[in-house]
Amino acid sequence: MMRARFITLEGVDGAGKSTHLSFIQNTLAQLGVDAVFTREPGGTALGERLRELLLAVDTRVSLETETLLMFAAREEHLAQVIRPALAAGRWVVSDRFTDATFAYQGGGRGLAFDRIEVLEEWVQRGLQPDLTLLFDVPTEVAAARMAASRNLDRFEREAADFHRRVRDAYLARAKDDPRFVVIDSTQPITVIQQALAQLLARFAEQA
Amino acid sequence: MMRARFITLEGVDGAGKSTHLSFIQNTLAQLGVDAVFTREPGGTALGERLRELLLAVDTRVSLETETLLMFAAREEHLAQVIRPALAAGRWVVSDRFTDATFAYQGGGRGLAFDRIEVLEEWVQRGLQPDLTLLFDVPTEVAAARMAASRNLDRFEREAADFHRRVRDAYLARAKDDPRFVVIDSTQPITVIQQALAQLLARFAEQA
Repeated sequence: MMRARFITLEGVDGAGKSTHLSFIQNTLAQLGVDAVFTREPGGTALGERLRELLLAVDTRVSLETETLLMFAAREEHLAQVIRPALAAGRWVVSDRFTDATFAYQGGGRGLAFDRIEVLEEWVQRGLQPDLTLLFDVPTEVAAARMAASRNLDRFEREAADFHRRVRDAYLARAKDDPRFVVIDSTQPITVIQQALAQLLARFAEQA
Repeated sequence: MMRARFITLEGVDGAGKSTHLSFIQNTLAQLGVDAVFTREPGGTALGERLRELLLAVDTRVSLETETLLMFAAREEHLAQVIRPALAAGRWVVSDRFTDATFAYQGGGRGLAFDRIEVLEEWVQRGLQPDLTLLFDVPTEVAAARMAASRNLDRFEREAADFHRRVRDAYLARAKDDPRFVVIDSTQPITVIQQALAQLLARFAEQA
């Protein structure tokens, strides 16, 4: 029997996470993997309510408060979705997880990484993703994609400099931790899909 | 000039905090103290929204999530109300603060005190009340008062045993920390008011 695995997708807005999500879904199904797909913030009734609250253009809360709300949603997400699925032997694929907090609230907004680590330990109690796919694009490419495609929420309206700091924080984390695989998201979609298919097949074999 | 002081009111539901709040308000005004009156959970727009969410009879979140939401509301309360008032030289009187989390989520529901301490330090960064008035009544007295007076919210519906553990946790904290003054709330209101008036006058003199 395969070991249940916890995979997270990360990257700046416009890096192509959503584009690749359904491909990952199909690939895992073909590999015979029973997987739960979820996302942050959100993934639970409470999480969705907090997601709405946090993404609303008129919401102004302090950085610290925003971070605590993110971790409250994460705690609920872990308790209701992630831990039960893993315990039942199912894989979990989450569109964003704690790395996003380090990147956005830490790198982007300047909350000290060690303060985030305290909350990470509080809610995760040692649980970490087995694999994190970091979709990476230069800031300018991401911004152009975003502008072309849809209305922007509060986080997306932030300046290019903010997105650069978010990207840098992601890349710094990826450099330090072997669970990360960085995917150059400027490549053609078919190239990325081929790489993802190989990667997931290898990962499933080892599970 | 008086030093700004931070006073909190604590006690189980039905212990008479609300009854004494307006008396405290008048007493401080007579002493020439410029004070801000606030409450938890609540005290800010976000706090009130979270308060509604947490007190709703149909809200079911894990104990850990509830505690993180409480501290998110507290962080906002500190940033928007408590710290600015104290910095401006005003006193702050809060109907409940972190001791309530230790009593309800800790003593009442069983979350380890050291886990609560991690979040306390995260949001308060060393700030503590200068004076905590703990209104104390035997559990049976509180329950009878509550039943007679109003509709019960989710916390208030909890069993007598729960309220006993909450009270015990409050009393244990009061025993360990000189900032607490325990007020026997079974005494006649006039007796309590006299004690409060003396206490606050002394406290204002020392400020």
